[in-house]
Amino acid sequence: MIYLTRRERFNAAHRLYKPEWDDKKNFDVFGKCSNPNWHGHNYELFVTIKGETNPETGFVINLKILSKIVREKVIEKLDHKNLNIDVDFMQGKITSAENIAIAVWNEIESEVSKLGCKLHCVKVVETENNSIEYYG
Amino acid sequence: MIYLTRRERFNAAHRLYKPEWDDKKNFDVFGKCSNPNWHGHNYELFVTIKGETNPETGFVINLKILSKIVREKVIEKLDHKNLNIDVDFMQGKITSAENIAIAVWNEIESEVSKLGCKLHCVKVVETENNSIEYYG
Amino acid sequence: MIYLTRRERFNAAHRLYKPEWDDKKNFDVFGKCSNPNWHGHNYELFVTIKGETNPETGFVINLKILSKIVREKVIEKLDHKNLNIDVDFMQGKITSAENIAIAVWNEIESEVSKLGCKLHCVKVVETENNSIEYYG
Amino acid sequence: MIYLTRRERFNAAHRLYKPEWDDKKNFDVFGKCSNPNWHGHNYELFVTIKGETNPETGFVINLKILSKIVREKVIEKLDHKNLNIDVDFMQGKITSAENIAIAVWNEIESEVSKLGCKLHCVKVVETENNSIEYYG
Amino acid sequence: MIYLTRRERFNAAHRLYKPEWDDKKNFDVFGKCSNPNWHGHNYELFVTIKGETNPETGFVINLKILSKIVREKVIEKLDHKNLNIDVDFMQGKITSAENIAIAVWNEIESEVSKLGCKLHCVKVVETENNSIEYYG
Amino acid sequence: MIYLTRRERFNAAHRLYKPEWDDKKNFDVFGKCSNPNWHGHNYELFVTIKGETNPETGFVINLKILSKIVREKVIEKLDHKNLNIDVDFMQGKITSAENIAIAVWNEIESEVSKLGCKLHCVKVVETENNSIEYYG
Repeated sequence: MIYLTRRERFNAAHRLYKPEWDDKKNFDVFGKCSNPNWHGHNYELFVTIKGETNPETGFVINLKILSKIVREKVIEKLDHKNLNIDVDFMQGKITSAENIAIAVWNEIESEVSKLGCKLHCVKVVETENNSIEYYG
Repeated sequence: MIYLTRRERFNAAHRLYKPEWDDKKNFDVFGKCSNPNWHGHNYELFVTIKGETNPETGFVINLKILSKIVREKVIEKLDHKNLNIDVDFMQGKITSAENIAIAVWNEIESEVSKLGCKLHCVKVVETENNSIEYYG
Repeated sequence: MIYLTRRERFNAAHRLYKPEWDDKKNFDVFGKCSNPNWHGHNYELFVTIKGETNPETGFVINLKILSKIVREKVIEKLDHKNLNIDVDFMQGKITSAENIAIAVWNEIESEVSKLGCKLHCVKVVETENNSIEYYG
Repeated sequence: MIYLTRRERFNAAHRLYKPEWDDKKNFDVFGKCSNPNWHGHNYELFVTIKGETNPETGFVINLKILSKIVREKVIEKLDHKNLNIDVDFMQGKITSAENIAIAVWNEIESEVSKLGCKLHCVKVVETENNSIEYYG
Repeated sequence: MIYLTRRERFNAAHRLYKPEWDDKKNFDVFGKCSNPNWHGHNYELFVTIKGETNPETGFVINLKILSKIVREKVIEKLDHKNLNIDVDFMQGKITSAENIAIAVWNEIESEVSKLGCKLHCVKVVETENNSIEYYG
Repeated sequence: MIYLTRRERFNAAHRLYKPEWDDKKNFDVFGKCSNPNWHGHNYELFVTIKGETNPETGFVINLKILSKIVREKVIEKLDHKNLNIDVDFMQGKITSAENIAIAVWNEIESEVSKLGCKLHCVKVVETENNSIEYYG
């Protein structure tokens, strides 16, 4: 088995908060990440798939195809967007890096499977100090 | 003359747009950076000062003091904020990296001068591909 | 299961040597890392915990709490210190990156468990070319 | 068990193509990577071994020895070379990052085993966006 | 004056050699960079322009326009190419990073000037250890 | 004029303190950097030279020669050393990054001049947040 990782990037605004809570409670739990006027990040997204190499091509998967899936299914929806407002697959969710990773997994997993590979990991890097990995 | 550079970071939301223009014109000029619901970045701020080394300390400037100025005068106002709404020194300005660099310069220049140094450069890195330098 | 990684940093001096051996034997085994007058590194520490996301917060763990544990239990003891002399949990140990990783694991594991998560990995990056991972 | 990772680098030319195919078919499958006049990369190679720490040294393996193996067995053959023409262990293979990772594994695995460790992973980073991991 | 820097990347093969010299003399001067079968790099190209900010947009220059110029005039000609064979503006030149930087400057300088800015610097990063800057 | 930059690295221990001051005064001025038992860093050293390109080679300077000078004159003396104790050219000096940069300049400037180039800048990066540039 070979593991292949593709990095894509998106720049987005978000806010961590629970609508049921008032601003004070949101601040107590989420701190400055709950700023009602939003803040944002340069997110890095690492998608890892696994599979056998195709002896014809030496590839697990053609990177152009994987990149196309990731861009169409998630990056175009996330990049230069507000994660809380603009993104269909984040509706009603707290926009933590954990939930972004899970949601990205769900958006691309069946597409990756169609290619004869398995999605292995979705990693979301929110800052140089904080990152999340989800393995399904 | 010695040049000393301190890096600080802030994560913020913003939108590039001109209020006098409608959404279409804003989109034509600023592209997806004009998204009405904001987007955001992990900004890196590099502040460079120049001066002679103090023979007592071997320092141009005590980094703790420089860091304190930059944090109090600009980072606390920018970090986890909306640059268009929350930041006093960006009011009425287009929140381009160019204007952020100029505004940061204006916020800290007199404080740096009081320490017997000269502010040399303010660099704002918006993404790994785009950055701005301002030398006053 | 979600995996969350927090990076912290510490700058420290150390020396690789075995007190039972003379300087020559130490040099034969540890090379220039055995310099009796010490050398040092900018260490990066990556702490990975795993758990379920809390549906209330979207978090596996509140990063502020994890960061607080790591800082209080290990970073404050390691940063700007001599790993051979100043650090209680390194006493009597060779201060290899391997042993640092194991020792950091032992210092924080019970604290992380109290939060309802499991410590998954402690990674110590000694230079851009060398790193260690320990999984307990 | 402790995992130790050593990074080495090599700069090489290559071309993705299948000799049985004409240039058009090669271009359809491999795109600009099939340029008949070659292109190249700064490759990063991360070799991870696992084992117990030696209580005498605090080491899983002496990094100098691991580095020597990796340099002699693979880096000297890959660095400033054409992967399709100059490298004995890539002869007749498509020089995809997948195949490089597998070939590097095969070149160094028995040498690492002789040291009492197990080779755990060979990672090849071709660009900042693309990487491959092979676990044997 | 504001300085704006855009990073672009290209992956290319090349060889340092002088056709008038035999292989031995080329090797004596250029070392392993003279390998007749080529080697290659992931080059980073940093283009810095300077100018006044446009008060309408807050921009020195619209980054999309600058990026378009750099891509069309140089990246498309350099990326996944052999610098010695495939690139019109490198014909007859030794493909050192110095000469790449000068040639890139000459390719884009008049285009940048048409936009009302001045080209300030072309930086070519060949490896993490080696880079060249050219200021015209 | 072309500017060429070579990066070298060294890992060293040091302590910021003034022997004439007691530990308390040293701590007041230098903070935790004055730890009597030392701390350390992975220093990055960037040496920039300027000159005309040699039309024979396309080089300002042969990087191997520049690297050899920097390694022999400074890296071998600094790497895996205690900057306060082991380094002849730092004797009696406060081992601030400022003073390291100035001292490195003085050690290599005449050697670089002999090659027909001019030393332009010595940059010392002490941490990812702090760096010093000296231009003579």
